[in-house]
Amino acid sequence: MTHTFELGRLFDPSSIAVVGASTKEGKIGYEAMENVHDFGGRVYPVNPSAEGSIFGASFVGSVTDIDDDVDLALLCVPAPIVPNVIEECGEAGVGAAVIYSGGFAEAGEEGVEIQRRMTEIANEHNIALLGPNTSGFVVPRTELFGSFATGVENFPPGGVAIVAQSGGVAHSLAFQATRERRGISAMVGLGNRANVGFEEVIEYFDADPETGAIILHVEGTDDARSLLQTCHDADTPVFAYKVGQADVGDFAASHTGALTGDHALYQAGFAQYGVPTVDSTSQLLDAGHVAASAPLPDGTNVGVVTAQAGPGIIIADRLKQAGVSLPSLEDETTETVNDILPGITYSANPVDTGRPMPEFGAVVRAVATDENIDAVLVYELHEAALGFPIEELDGLAEEVGKPVVFATAGPESDLAPDRTELEDAGVPVFESPERAADAVATLATYARLRDDAAPAGVIDDA
Amino acid sequence: MTHTFELGRLFDPSSIAVVGASTKEGKIGYEAMENVHDFGGRVYPVNPSAEGSIFGASFVGSVTDIDDDVDLALLCVPAPIVPNVIEECGEAGVGAAVIYSGGFAEAGEEGVEIQRRMTEIANEHNIALLGPNTSGFVVPRTELFGSFATGVENFPPGGVAIVAQSGGVAHSLAFQATRERRGISAMVGLGNRANVGFEEVIEYFDADPETGAIILHVEGTDDARSLLQTCHDADTPVFAYKVGQADVGDFAASHTGALTGDHALYQAGFAQYGVPTVDSTSQLLDAGHVAASAPLPDGTNVGVVTAQAGPGIIIADRLKQAGVSLPSLEDETTETVNDILPGITYSANPVDTGRPMPEFGAVVRAVATDENIDAVLVYELHEAALGFPIEELDGLAEEVGKPVVFATAGPESDLAPDRTELEDAGVPVFESPERAADAVATLATYARLRDDAAPAGVIDDA
Repeated sequence: MTHTFELGRLFDPSSIAVVGASTKEGKIGYEAMENVHDFGGRVYPVNPSAEGSIFGASFVGSVTDIDDDVDLALLCVPAPIVPNVIEECGEAGVGAAVIYSGGFAEAGEEGVEIQRRMTEIANEHNIALLGPNTSGFVVPRTELFGSFATGVENFPPGGVAIVAQSGGVAHSLAFQATRERRGISAMVGLGNRANVGFEEVIEYFDADPETGAIILHVEGTDDARSLLQTCHDADTPVFAYKVGQADVGDFAASHTGALTGDHALYQAGFAQYGVPTVDSTSQLLDAGHVAASAPLPDGTNVGVVTAQAGPGIIIADRLKQAGVSLPSLEDETTETVNDILPGITYSANPVDTGRPMPEFGAVVRAVATDENIDAVLVYELHEAALGFPIEELDGLAEEVGKPVVFATAGPESDLAPDRTELEDAGVPVFESPERAADAVATLATYARLRDDAAPAGVIDDA
Repeated sequence: MTHTFELGRLFDPSSIAVVGASTKEGKIGYEAMENVHDFGGRVYPVNPSAEGSIFGASFVGSVTDIDDDVDLALLCVPAPIVPNVIEECGEAGVGAAVIYSGGFAEAGEEGVEIQRRMTEIANEHNIALLGPNTSGFVVPRTELFGSFATGVENFPPGGVAIVAQSGGVAHSLAFQATRERRGISAMVGLGNRANVGFEEVIEYFDADPETGAIILHVEGTDDARSLLQTCHDADTPVFAYKVGQADVGDFAASHTGALTGDHALYQAGFAQYGVPTVDSTSQLLDAGHVAASAPLPDGTNVGVVTAQAGPGIIIADRLKQAGVSLPSLEDETTETVNDILPGITYSANPVDTGRPMPEFGAVVRAVATDENIDAVLVYELHEAALGFPIEELDGLAEEVGKPVVFATAGPESDLAPDRTELEDAGVPVFESPERAADAVATLATYARLRDDAAPAGVIDDA
């Protein structure tokens, strides 16, 4: 898709107009205004029937009345008047607009026509349209809260760009990430994708130095090949969660007006274009988090080190089911491990130390430096007296150029400070053996698919 | 399996001896003593080479020196001397013992022989043996912390009995439950199952009025039919997580000395005997939590109500993949919903209200009372101004005799108080659409399997 708008005016604006700004709490025009009012740039509430001011800013009657270059307009007005507002935005030189309301292509013939007109006008004026039918976007690093939802000001800044077809799913993902203390570079709900689609947003965040991974929630798109090609061309790792394995087509069409399409074709297409797919929102977040915060593996060989056999078996089982290999360790590694822990419970791969112990970090280091190993997954129940082997693991991942991922469980009060230190030392920490295994398996799959990935244009239209 | 010991002396003792109690912090004999020292009954530290006292109790040289009926002995001594200690326990009339140490059947020929001797002696004296090779058990309600792990005193009391083949997995599950504020009636790590196996523990907690669901972590057992028959005979819902779908047999054998067996046969066996199986520790906990805290569904028809289409599609997709049906609603229900919300986004099943709104609770109630529906799953992003429809949902599940399950996301500070109120109102709350869907699907599967479940003895040995 070719476009002439600049997404920087959407995601990194200097000035914002809130059209339909309202003093009535609970209305979208109030919530959106509340969320952007202390954004670092200039903010203009627009409402022809309002007087006075809101959050310290005076109402103006129209975007055309603003004596300033407005980059972004947030439209909190009903569908039927949106085309006119976009026309005014065009006259005023606005560069981008978010359209929150529904009643467009997802809502039958009339809505389809409104969306067509609005998009035509926007394209004439080079206006990027996020939505319609979206709850918006957030860029935590710049405190840009272009969403009407409450609580979005606490999303922690970080390296994962969330790009979801559904605004609701975008917010659900971002709140989940926040609860688990994982940083995001942006959260974007695409909605009906009038002229800003997956492709444009992926390209933008691929070029964003703050973004280390892009995660996609996909219901369906009319041009799957274009989406796949964009993912393929991105240097940043992209992971996708394609919804609609079962038949949910009718309901999905009522949502963002998109067809869910043939699930198997999508899955195959993503694989062929180098994009691992996952089966849940948690897996999507987890893969993004590890990819953004640790080195990527060069291959699919995983070394597992566990202090408790039971969770270690769960991890090994899960990795193998996902097609990941647990190769033999080099003789040198096995010797080192046996030197560190004579009589060790199980010194193949997985390495099972039988219990947490002071030497545990040295064992992990030995496995991480093994040439047969592309990624390391560690399980250790937290023991208050011992803590985690933070010193041995600090910087290890960077040093060996492989992800080192930790899974654990324990009492929150003891665990929390050690978890923070370990994450700061470059080791992502999970509190479920399966989630850690799934994340590592997804990264290993990324390595495999990127090796195999097809060049442009060899896949049939999905 | 017939046995003559009493598991009440293990899980509900009046007096405990800690054999190998130690004043050295970090040693199992210290940690176990610390965990039980202010247990409500009498506690005796036993160590022939220690003098003085520990946690206010005087050391004795042997269990035979204790002038009291000792119900339970916690053995913190190495494998080779365990048979002799069990012999002394027998002389002293001890009713049950937990053997923490490894070096038994999981560790080669010599260990197999030690385990055989120990078990023979225990059986002669009617002593129940938990382990060997386990980190123990916990009964939160009576503050009985028969584990040597730290932090177990914070497990919240509740209705789920965790029965895990691996002590490490038992603890991992209990810490996960604690982190997610879910109560457990007991956590049991079976280890090598010398004479207390799945069957005995399931029977015990099936008869426990505090236990509303039993969740099993299974690596493998020599007598699968006996396990299956016990699950089948239990009135309490049982859910199982069978590990070992991929080939992890060697490593598993090194763990609790058990074969993982043929995974597909186990899965089929569980299904035939009325036990839903799950694929992760989270799914296991989630199914147990809902079964213990809400009415069980009578069938597999689920009604979905969502305030945001995107997460609703994820839920519908996930439910359908799990073989759950989303039937049409009764005409009366559709009319009621359309009366409550004229112009509603999607009034089939799922019902999509498009946004959270004050009428949301009334819509959920309408679907819950629909005769076509056996269970209700609701998704609503939390909005601070609106909260959850607690008043409308309070007691609804009991009233209609169906589980009503909520999934949400939102900022923790706003969400937490509403979540607690909703859970107190009888509505389990999840913060991931997939986890809620998986839990409801597992309960629906339980209803289906219990209808179909085979009578005793019709399955081949698995």
